[in-house]
Amino acid sequence: MEALTDGIFAISMTLLVLELKVPDAPKSISSHELLHKLGEEIPAFFSFFVSFIYCGLLWTLHHLAAHFFRHIQLGLAWLNLFFLMSIALLPFSCALLGHFLGNVAAEEIYFGNMLVAAVLLALQWQVATRKNLINEDDPQAAKDIGQKLLFFPPALAAAMLVTPYGSKAAFYAMAMVFVTLRIWQRKVLRKTKSPSPPPSS
Amino acid sequence: MEALTDGIFAISMTLLVLELKVPDAPKSISSHELLHKLGEEIPAFFSFFVSFIYCGLLWTLHHLAAHFFRHIQLGLAWLNLFFLMSIALLPFSCALLGHFLGNVAAEEIYFGNMLVAAVLLALQWQVATRKNLINEDDPQAAKDIGQKLLFFPPALAAAMLVTPYGSKAAFYAMAMVFVTLRIWQRKVLRKTKSPSPPPSS
Amino acid sequence: MEALTDGIFAISMTLLVLELKVPDAPKSISSHELLHKLGEEIPAFFSFFVSFIYCGLLWTLHHLAAHFFRHIQLGLAWLNLFFLMSIALLPFSCALLGHFLGNVAAEEIYFGNMLVAAVLLALQWQVATRKNLINEDDPQAAKDIGQKLLFFPPALAAAMLVTPYGSKAAFYAMAMVFVTLRIWQRKVLRKTKSPSPPPSS
Amino acid sequence: MEALTDGIFAISMTLLVLELKVPDAPKSISSHELLHKLGEEIPAFFSFFVSFIYCGLLWTLHHLAAHFFRHIQLGLAWLNLFFLMSIALLPFSCALLGHFLGNVAAEEIYFGNMLVAAVLLALQWQVATRKNLINEDDPQAAKDIGQKLLFFPPALAAAMLVTPYGSKAAFYAMAMVFVTLRIWQRKVLRKTKSPSPPPSS
Repeated sequence: MEALTDGIFAISMTLLVLELKVPDAPKSISSHELLHKLGEEIPAFFSFFVSFIYCGLLWTLHHLAAHFFRHIQLGLAWLNLFFLMSIALLPFSCALLGHFLGNVAAEEIYFGNMLVAAVLLALQWQVATRKNLINEDDPQAAKDIGQKLLFFPPALAAAMLVTPYGSKAAFYAMAMVFVTLRIWQRKVLRKTKSPSPPPSS
Repeated sequence: MEALTDGIFAISMTLLVLELKVPDAPKSISSHELLHKLGEEIPAFFSFFVSFIYCGLLWTLHHLAAHFFRHIQLGLAWLNLFFLMSIALLPFSCALLGHFLGNVAAEEIYFGNMLVAAVLLALQWQVATRKNLINEDDPQAAKDIGQKLLFFPPALAAAMLVTPYGSKAAFYAMAMVFVTLRIWQRKVLRKTKSPSPPPSS
Repeated sequence: MEALTDGIFAISMTLLVLELKVPDAPKSISSHELLHKLGEEIPAFFSFFVSFIYCGLLWTLHHLAAHFFRHIQLGLAWLNLFFLMSIALLPFSCALLGHFLGNVAAEEIYFGNMLVAAVLLALQWQVATRKNLINEDDPQAAKDIGQKLLFFPPALAAAMLVTPYGSKAAFYAMAMVFVTLRIWQRKVLRKTKSPSPPPSS
Repeated sequence: MEALTDGIFAISMTLLVLELKVPDAPKSISSHELLHKLGEEIPAFFSFFVSFIYCGLLWTLHHLAAHFFRHIQLGLAWLNLFFLMSIALLPFSCALLGHFLGNVAAEEIYFGNMLVAAVLLALQWQVATRKNLINEDDPQAAKDIGQKLLFFPPALAAAMLVTPYGSKAAFYAMAMVFVTLRIWQRKVLRKTKSPSPPPSS
């Protein structure tokens, strides 16, 4: 399943760029006007940027999580297939957002798509844990990944809740959770690196 | 051949999304109107959904089957090349169906394309069996895959037969076979897990 | 270099399908009219078919050849990069042919692109042979591949020469060489399988 | 990270071809006119050619560099994600340049995109060196790659500086650095092959 997953992520992430259109202007356009035209596409660049980083994070987490699966069982394979479908849909949601930035419906669809992907990824981990398919070689690292996976769904749910009150606020909400995630991550890592304080003799 | 196969599946499955077009509407469109516009694209979303799942199933079966091939022989390589061609054509058939859902010709082409893919995959297995190229390490699993591969062609043939009598009925026919497959699969798995009933003493 | 090569082949082969356009017709079109519209696209289907098979053959040969390279040296890497560029260009040449089938310039560009790819692949083998980079484990198989690689350039050169006298004749010329290749291949294989005729006592 | 990197490079390099459009002309166009139409697209072919070679070089260097990384650390993974984003953006910058060749803004964006990619790749190496993550098995080869990576940023910075004074001059500037790189590379390789001159007895 890894090869198909890698392929679909790579393609989805690269297809995001197809939403960035070369401005429809005469070839003799001045540099100033071209920059102005490109400036109008800033929403599309913004949604490309956010979506690419988001996909990159999900891919990394999926990759880390997959290393802990002892084997793939039928239920997990189906969850992964639906997960990949939500990833394959992202270029569409991203294009929708890039074209209609500020439109509540477009933004809800965009965050909704991301939420579904995050939930399906976290679910894979939960199912694997329940069915005892998680490799116990490095329980600390496994716990760490399991926790990280649970961070994404609330972040995106927050973004969806905030969207109707302001399209930018939703991104701030999501970003805040990412920063929180980062801080939390650091703390955990620091703890992990000094797990056993030297016994005072 | 695995790397090329994985790549072509991943790309075909992701290209399916290119058929979902961002609605051609002014940027100031209201959320309500945007949702309405997207609602008109439901046939395209539906054909994306069905095609993605179908490709995912075929990929999984191909992957499982390929593990049983002791080596690839010239005839198998050619069958696989034509199989990959039918997969690469799916985004086109899917787009056709998404655009003309309800049109008998579009639906027959769509199911026909899927049928050709399923037949070419089943044929690979048959040829490998005849030429004694199937690994005999796990005969039960090999038999299981061989049977599953034979389920797809009749399911799609049924869909093609039913299409002229109603475009939705064809999907029900195909879905029914999938459910049947699932039930049958379960039964076989249960039997496999308890293959030796305890001898009555 | 294998991973990049596999990826570029898989993508080029799948992008060929983007040239097949869903007919631009009202959604209420009849099945009969839809089939008629699709019939007008037969040249595009034909060029998809030929190009896909051609790419598949080149990929197989590249793959077989690459297994014989002991290591990749700078000159080979550059040749392979230009080879991949000619493969990445094929979807364009194929689209050109599909749109202007019968036009001498479009056909010469198409066959020319194929010829460049074939020459660059054959050159890789020649360079590797000269620089003594070919693995000598199976000299018979190595010789076999080296010969097959030399078949493509003349086939495509023949097609280019015949093109001005008739657009279909060029395809017949190419096809004839493929059939010849096939027959020759069979003979070699038969010889290989019975290399030592039993000595008459 | 290798699989995602390979995938994104392969797709970006192949998507470059999507910028080459089949001329919009009637199917009955003469060969002469078709060639004339294609001649107008020479800027697009030129930017396809330069971008493909550039991507191929960066991929090769990334690949060579990645083999020296003992393990991937969080900072490196983020740098690589931004690096991949700059690669995924290249088809857009390339299309912009192909459409507006000679326009200073388009050319600065194109070279700027390439510069960002080159800087992020060189940064990965610098970070890995600082954090002592470079495998010391072959220090000569490691040093060689580290030096090559530092060649790209100045070459592209030169192109960006020269662009306002002439759009072709910028390409000459970049090409000159590539030739310089090549000559320097050769010298280094020659030295490497005769590292220990026989001691005069």
